[in-house]
Amino acid sequence: MKNNTPRFAVVLSGCGVFDGSEIHEAVCTMLSIEQSGCEYQCFAPNTWQARTIDHFTGHATAIAGDEDNRNVLAESARICRGQIKDLQEFKAQDFSAIIFPGGFGAALNLSDFGVKGAECDVNAEVKRALEESYAEGLVIGAMCIAPVVIARVLGKQGISLTIGNDKNVAKGLEKMGAKHENKAATEVCVDTEHKIVTVPCYMLATSIREIYDATRNLVDEMLEIMDY
Amino acid sequence: MKNNTPRFAVVLSGCGVFDGSEIHEAVCTMLSIEQSGCEYQCFAPNTWQARTIDHFTGHATAIAGDEDNRNVLAESARICRGQIKDLQEFKAQDFSAIIFPGGFGAALNLSDFGVKGAECDVNAEVKRALEESYAEGLVIGAMCIAPVVIARVLGKQGISLTIGNDKNVAKGLEKMGAKHENKAATEVCVDTEHKIVTVPCYMLATSIREIYDATRNLVDEMLEIMDY
Repeated sequence: MKNNTPRFAVVLSGCGVFDGSEIHEAVCTMLSIEQSGCEYQCFAPNTWQARTIDHFTGHATAIAGDEDNRNVLAESARICRGQIKDLQEFKAQDFSAIIFPGGFGAALNLSDFGVKGAECDVNAEVKRALEESYAEGLVIGAMCIAPVVIARVLGKQGISLTIGNDKNVAKGLEKMGAKHENKAATEVCVDTEHKIVTVPCYMLATSIREIYDATRNLVDEMLEIMDY
Repeated sequence: MKNNTPRFAVVLSGCGVFDGSEIHEAVCTMLSIEQSGCEYQCFAPNTWQARTIDHFTGHATAIAGDEDNRNVLAESARICRGQIKDLQEFKAQDFSAIIFPGGFGAALNLSDFGVKGAECDVNAEVKRALEESYAEGLVIGAMCIAPVVIARVLGKQGISLTIGNDKNVAKGLEKMGAKHENKAATEVCVDTEHKIVTVPCYMLATSIREIYDATRNLVDEMLEIMDY
């Protein structure tokens, strides 16, 4: 029944490509959702980052357990002017879609794919949110490296995904049960059967303009297969 | 001589609306510059933040002098994937324009307008960058609260600016020698004589879509009066 404004849950993983959400991907996602006449609510897990990286020097300044390490929810709040909820509050029935921007946060904070590869663990609240979203028939979107999280939770359903064309990451996805399709930076992989839509973004992109094009394409394709 | 690709310097003030650059304004600025076929380089002063705010709770976690306070350059680097330079390296002759996104960072880190109002001090490198940009004939752009920095450095030239319609801030601008024009969120104030272009953004806006429209308008108007 398509008579309501579609609502997207946007799941963030920190604030900054090297230890959290990739900011351009997160912001262009929110912009694309609004420009499509839809609404969004940001969420993040209330947990510690795996590490904190000085984005100027590229060096780690803290790791999990250190007193000056950062909290994923508090940092994610920067990207959305404080308008964010603890992922614990997420209820799938309140949304038409859930979407995961990329950045190392997806492979370090939402999951530990960046350390353990295909054997990775997924944050318990992220896992719950994905399982409930899938069960409720929400459209699930992910960009950049974030499809690894989807693959770990839902790979055994026989889903199709893209992370661009990186052979090692693609191999990891396939070990987790997903099928990988090579795509260009702004080119969307649509799994209509499982309602999963993915796009490579900064796995291949070199400019913010491409990120905007990719998130517009992603949101468009998500709306195509959405019940709302 | 309009035969080169216009290059914009984008001056950031941290990463997050409450203690640094407003992230939507910063990202939409970079996107608008690229979508106009132009190039940008981000800069930030290598100095300490006035304060660090937990953007989830809204509480200060550190102030200047505290060991766990954050560095403006290191935090700004998050918004541009590490592709940033110390503002000390800025040379006006390498650019056609310089642009300042908003956020409390403009009124706390680039200047201390947020504490001292019209009697504020401006960070020495920010002051130098603005003075050299003005002397070289660059177009100067600013959004949200950032025009206070322009007013403090160049107000005595008789410039016109907008920060929306906040009477107290407008009074502050006028004390610093600038003329204030009331404008709506996405409506640009163009001072053709002094080549200064400003737009209210989140001084009045309530959505990221408006921010994108505002930065597109800002960049368009800057290109109109630019030598490149």
